[in-house]
Amino acid sequence: MSVFSHTEFDNHEQVVFCHDEITGLKAIIAIHNTNRGPALGGCRMWHYASDEEAVNDVLRLSKGMTYKSALANLDLGGGKSVIIGDPRKHKTADLLAAMGRFLERTGNQYIAAEDSGTSVADLQVMAQQTNNVAGITARTGIDGLPCNGDPSPATAYGTYIGLKTAVQYQLDRTDLKGIKVAIQGVGNVGYRLAEQLHQAGAQLFVTDIHPEQVERAVKELGATAVSQNEVLSLDVDVIAPCALGAILNDESIPLIKAKVIAGAANNQLASQRHDLMLRERGILYAPDYVLNAGGIIDIFYERIGHEHTKVRAHIETIADTLREIFHRADTQDRPTGEIANELAEERFTR
Amino acid sequence: MSVFSHTEFDNHEQVVFCHDEITGLKAIIAIHNTNRGPALGGCRMWHYASDEEAVNDVLRLSKGMTYKSALANLDLGGGKSVIIGDPRKHKTADLLAAMGRFLERTGNQYIAAEDSGTSVADLQVMAQQTNNVAGITARTGIDGLPCNGDPSPATAYGTYIGLKTAVQYQLDRTDLKGIKVAIQGVGNVGYRLAEQLHQAGAQLFVTDIHPEQVERAVKELGATAVSQNEVLSLDVDVIAPCALGAILNDESIPLIKAKVIAGAANNQLASQRHDLMLRERGILYAPDYVLNAGGIIDIFYERIGHEHTKVRAHIETIADTLREIFHRADTQDRPTGEIANELAEERFTR
Repeated sequence: MSVFSHTEFDNHEQVVFCHDEITGLKAIIAIHNTNRGPALGGCRMWHYASDEEAVNDVLRLSKGMTYKSALANLDLGGGKSVIIGDPRKHKTADLLAAMGRFLERTGNQYIAAEDSGTSVADLQVMAQQTNNVAGITARTGIDGLPCNGDPSPATAYGTYIGLKTAVQYQLDRTDLKGIKVAIQGVGNVGYRLAEQLHQAGAQLFVTDIHPEQVERAVKELGATAVSQNEVLSLDVDVIAPCALGAILNDESIPLIKAKVIAGAANNQLASQRHDLMLRERGILYAPDYVLNAGGIIDIFYERIGHEHTKVRAHIETIADTLREIFHRADTQDRPTGEIANELAEERFTR
Repeated sequence: MSVFSHTEFDNHEQVVFCHDEITGLKAIIAIHNTNRGPALGGCRMWHYASDEEAVNDVLRLSKGMTYKSALANLDLGGGKSVIIGDPRKHKTADLLAAMGRFLERTGNQYIAAEDSGTSVADLQVMAQQTNNVAGITARTGIDGLPCNGDPSPATAYGTYIGLKTAVQYQLDRTDLKGIKVAIQGVGNVGYRLAEQLHQAGAQLFVTDIHPEQVERAVKELGATAVSQNEVLSLDVDVIAPCALGAILNDESIPLIKAKVIAGAANNQLASQRHDLMLRERGILYAPDYVLNAGGIIDIFYERIGHEHTKVRAHIETIADTLREIFHRADTQDRPTGEIANELAEERFTR
């Protein structure tokens, strides 16, 4: 029953079990580390098979946010929250308001953002009870267009910066002209990445579970449609995973011909050891959580006065962090994922 | 691992697991119910055999505080906190300060007070980090004398009021002249109770594990010293348990000759069914947590402007609550402990 002995506890500062009898709310707020600032992380609503699964999920995700924000050089700590329930069946305004009241009970040490199963509108309901909600105000997006809170353009831009940095490091190319990139998933983030790569002169190969998205990329960006099965083994320069997790595994890695992996999908490595496997095959892996930090950088600026030019400039520092990771990895002959974790720890440990 | 499914969870609003890597602090804050106001309850430090034991303890005690404060007509909810560790070995100023910072992270919904293993001085260290600490300022005690935070005089006075009310109800006596009272434990609370009973003309029989306390009562209050073994079976009018818990059990109850049980010790019933066993024997049991609420009443007034005459008046309302409990118990022919719980629930349920 005690969360202190949970295998994923890993020095969490605080784990809060929240319950509201009237609305039926059951939620867990995990605050992993606040050394750099208040913990910011998504508030997920999910129909977990058990409370145990929810505990496991929130602890793992909360810790990940500490690492991500530290590597993105943000004055933020890491946290996450989960509401246990089916968002299509159990979500009510009263339940969201109750969650807002619990967010108010963290001494401003946890700030919730949109996540799986919650929308900007849901977070706005919570925000009536607390200031500890982020990513909900209309602003100018990093592309200079109006934005109601969608972090996808910022995430896509950071991924683009990261991909370019990895290509430069690994292939010694300062531009992307003629560089072949296979994109797995051209949804909100992937499509925006494809647009920027196209504009920079890259040659695109795309796949997606939604055929209309693929057709659009073919028509508008001159991309070549490929199948889900072949996308990872294409004879290209770069693979940009922008959909599923765990796609870098024992089966896929031996077939990869690309020399660079740089995409926005979360948790691309099936397990930590696949990091080393990529290195041994001479493939440069740009750690996913470094590349996809654009969204949280965007949200952070909402709290301190959002100026889209400043957000862009901050996102561009992803390049510096990546170069440091690549350099250390080569100097120490160790995998990039491991180095990224170590660099994050240096940045958030007191 | 999930506290939601704990057998003692019972609609807790919030259970917070707190951990501070640097000081080694491991603590749990449980907030059972805040419908009447912020949860007030002791912060205990204890060398628990396991984290599980700590979870169990904090949940059980936290719930008890909701019932106690509701029956005492206080605008307070119920909560409790436990620091896991040996107070003689693991208590440091840094650890207490870390606990103070966690108290600050409850959105002012939990207020800590002195408890087993913590002192007023310890709480003062926590209070440097937060306002959510009570019972630490010097004030005029309910006896009109200066008081640095010790709630014993208030607890003793409430117990005295409760005992008198029970005697009046059960024995139809408006005064205590010549009433025989056996007191188990003449420590901080028990001795003060003995003084008031003596002044009111009662005849005292006392026992204690510390012989010097017994001697003092014999010498100053004309009490008769009795042994631990015989104290519960004496031919007296009232038994006032002011030491151990669980002393009303299968062994002791058949031997009781007194018609009233009214004392300050916590958890006097070994289990809930012993409540009925007392009723069936025609013994009036004044529920312990109604009688010993003087301390929390005293602490409550510290927060709203302490005036010892108001505190005394509030403590005296224990008599009204007890009379309502006794009356309902007789009307419905049900045990007093059960009725007290029911009345508390009426008062804290929305």
